Amino acid sequence: MDYYSSGISRLIEELGKLPGVGPKSAQRLAFHIINMPEEAVDRLASSITEAKHSVCYCKKCCTLTDQELCPICSSTSRDTSTIMVVENPRDLAAYEKTGRYNGLYHVLHGAISPALGIGPGDIRLKELMQRLQSEPVSELIVATNSSLEGETTAMYISKLVKPTGIRVTRIASGVPVGGDLEYIDEVTLLRALDGRVEL
Amino acid sequence: MDYYSSGISRLIEELGKLPGVGPKSAQRLAFHIINMPEEAVDRLASSITEAKHSVCYCKKCCTLTDQELCPICSSTSRDTSTIMVVENPRDLAAYEKTGRYNGLYHVLHGAISPALGIGPGDIRLKELMQRLQSEPVSELIVATNSSLEGETTAMYISKLVKPTGIRVTRIASGVPVGGDLEYIDEVTLLRALDGRVEL
Repeated sequence: MDYYSSGISRLIEELGKLPGVGPKSAQRLAFHIINMPEEAVDRLASSITEAKHSVCYCKKCCTLTDQELCPICSSTSRDTSTIMVVENPRDLAAYEKTGRYNGLYHVLHGAISPALGIGPGDIRLKELMQRLQSEPVSELIVATNSSLEGETTAMYISKLVKPTGIRVTRIASGVPVGGDLEYIDEVTLLRALDGRVEL
Repeated sequence: MDYYSSGISRLIEELGKLPGVGPKSAQRLAFHIINMPEEAVDRLASSITEAKHSVCYCKKCCTLTDQELCPICSSTSRDTSTIMVVENPRDLAAYEKTGRYNGLYHVLHGAISPALGIGPGDIRLKELMQRLQSEPVSELIVATNSSLEGETTAMYISKLVKPTGIRVTRIASGVPVGGDLEYIDEVTLLRALDGRVEL
């Protein structure tokens, strides 16, 4: 690609490494960035480094945040007796957008997948069990995806938690099988929440 | 979006401003970036600022480069008697990729479009006319897109240059009407070059 200057080639190469960005899109994005006003470019670059460097895991729910406790865990208006277990922060955001769930969350950062070699020790399950011992939780809503991995994880959590006497529920199968939680409309998400059943 | 930390929200917002990146893609990209190794994130951010700050216009052909003269204009092995006029650097790259064109280029950075209020003074036409006076050019190949704007620009250039006695040609209409040069396969690009006709 020596028909571009080295700076442009490098930018195209770096952008092309992002998911869903092919060589043509990388080229388009690169030229768009070069034609952006200087301060907009600096804002974009700094937002990238700052997000990366400021982000850490919430000490309680393990979601990504920039403080010791995330805004939800440190809020005083949330119902601390309910914890919803989700696979990742985007799933948390999907339920927050509905505006109808007022409990806490626990972010696993993945799901159990024997095929991919992801076991219970590779996701944030230990942290969840510790919370259940120290927090006044009466219900655990398992809102992992309705994929094979999500269902496996839900069953695993159910077996693990039931002996403690805490009520374990699963969001209803209003969520289409094989679907990815973050792409589902709010009405379906709420229907799934309302129709949750005992595990 | 206060269910994300401010750093993540800002990153999602900045990424969402890029062309072709919707809110969902911005979110996906942001979480991908946060999960990338630290040095990869820094490489991405620095490639953005460096490309923007190092890039300037080639003094001769007006393409984007990081030196006074672009690699093509400063090469001693190119045929300086032929100039191909293209709308943007990506179109230049498209012809360079064919590896069969050995002349010089001139990048207009746009095309004449009365509808969008882009006149001959808004693209690099003055620079082209100055080159034709000072350089030993015998043929000018007009390779603007075969869109309404590209054709308008080609006709305008033809009328402007013909009185100087320089041969003005147009790439053949092997390029599909309404098509965008950078997305066309190399064989079609070459066929269009070989079949170029007198304007």
